[in-house]
Amino acid sequence: MQFTSEQRLDDGILEREFTLGEIPGTLWTPESAAPAPLILMAHNNGLPKADPRLVARARHSAARGYAVATIDAAGCGDRPRSAAAEQARAELRRAMQAGEPLDEIFESLVGPLVEQAAPEWRATLDALLSLPEIGGPVGYSGWTALGIRLAVAEPRIAAAGFFAGGYVPHAQREEARQVTVPLLFLLQWDDEGNPRQRALDLFDAFGTKEKTLHANLGGHTGTPWFEVEDGGRFYDRHLK
Amino acid sequence: MQFTSEQRLDDGILEREFTLGEIPGTLWTPESAAPAPLILMAHNNGLPKADPRLVARARHSAARGYAVATIDAAGCGDRPRSAAAEQARAELRRAMQAGEPLDEIFESLVGPLVEQAAPEWRATLDALLSLPEIGGPVGYSGWTALGIRLAVAEPRIAAAGFFAGGYVPHAQREEARQVTVPLLFLLQWDDEGNPRQRALDLFDAFGTKEKTLHANLGGHTGTPWFEVEDGGRFYDRHLK
Repeated sequence: MQFTSEQRLDDGILEREFTLGEIPGTLWTPESAAPAPLILMAHNNGLPKADPRLVARARHSAARGYAVATIDAAGCGDRPRSAAAEQARAELRRAMQAGEPLDEIFESLVGPLVEQAAPEWRATLDALLSLPEIGGPVGYSGWTALGIRLAVAEPRIAAAGFFAGGYVPHAQREEARQVTVPLLFLLQWDDEGNPRQRALDLFDAFGTKEKTLHANLGGHTGTPWFEVEDGGRFYDRHLK
Repeated sequence: MQFTSEQRLDDGILEREFTLGEIPGTLWTPESAAPAPLILMAHNNGLPKADPRLVARARHSAARGYAVATIDAAGCGDRPRSAAAEQARAELRRAMQAGEPLDEIFESLVGPLVEQAAPEWRATLDALLSLPEIGGPVGYSGWTALGIRLAVAEPRIAAAGFFAGGYVPHAQREEARQVTVPLLFLLQWDDEGNPRQRALDLFDAFGTKEKTLHANLGGHTGTPWFEVEDGGRFYDRHLK
């Protein structure tokens, strides 16, 4: 893991860009003497890690005392896109305009992205936990499909907050029953591209006994800011 | 409004029993120089106002700086039950054992209870707001069916937290569209006697633009304590 730049923010948070092989990432760490618990903040493939909303959330969590890390995994954010993914995206646009069913196309796009992203996130977790300023436990935040994959494959993840707005491949819908960590599931009630009933079915399917659903009125990007604070308290209960 | 007893609790909260005509109530007020905002904490008809879980929640809200009031409305708690309500309850037990549909019986039991309770709560609100130690604004907490009635009829209510576990009469399901105050709707995902889909439909129906659903795994009485704290923050956002 190579740090390529750093800046100290007003509230003492250290924000560093890093690379791990081909993987570009950002790490926020709080001003703290003791090793901090860690939150992996994973975003859906369409957003780059420098998206202002993601950065604002990361800084909020760092101000609560967490190390927060995010990467652009293979095919995500600003990383090069595979020919297959580009073809799936073009097909998706065409099918949307034609009003055709999208599930098969989403499956061919998102399924491989999750499969490729998971090992990169696990390698990043290894590298992060080797830093003296990061202790544990480890929480996960964001992209549901990847989070299910990681929560099942990665025993170091102790709690997870998922955002329901995004296609969840069939394999991860099946794996949801194996998720046993405490869970906060965040749903936008009128998310345009994500059927509500499918999200409720997924919440029902999660295997964990300690799961909470928060749903708010509004579309995909309308999540109110107080949910960021509620998320912070969720991590405080499980990671501190 | 006659105060009939009082005790000062360890954290400075004053807990007073009162009567308003035939209505017995309890009022908790915080140690505070300024008039406090008020939360009306209404419970489903089956519980008396002295139920330990209700009292714990009231004391928690008072410790946050709220005046909290509850009453046993007509036919509720320890108040005498009408012959019609007693007959409906007997019929309910019989139908439950026989596995018969319950909606009509619930309608005949809960509908009149809401109609009778609402004016008593409004009279209590008048009396409470005349006390110098209580200012406003006013929040509502608890019994959904009564809360819908009050939120529609009573412009002084500025925010409401509803617990989804309880039969909501047809009239209140219709009125839900007229509820426009900020709303926190609390659902137990596996509430034995309260169909989940009906609660989700009700959440969908509320007319307010600022509504949040919190759902937790577990049965009717399994609400985790952190929801009391989340509720406190909801009131803080809207009443302080």
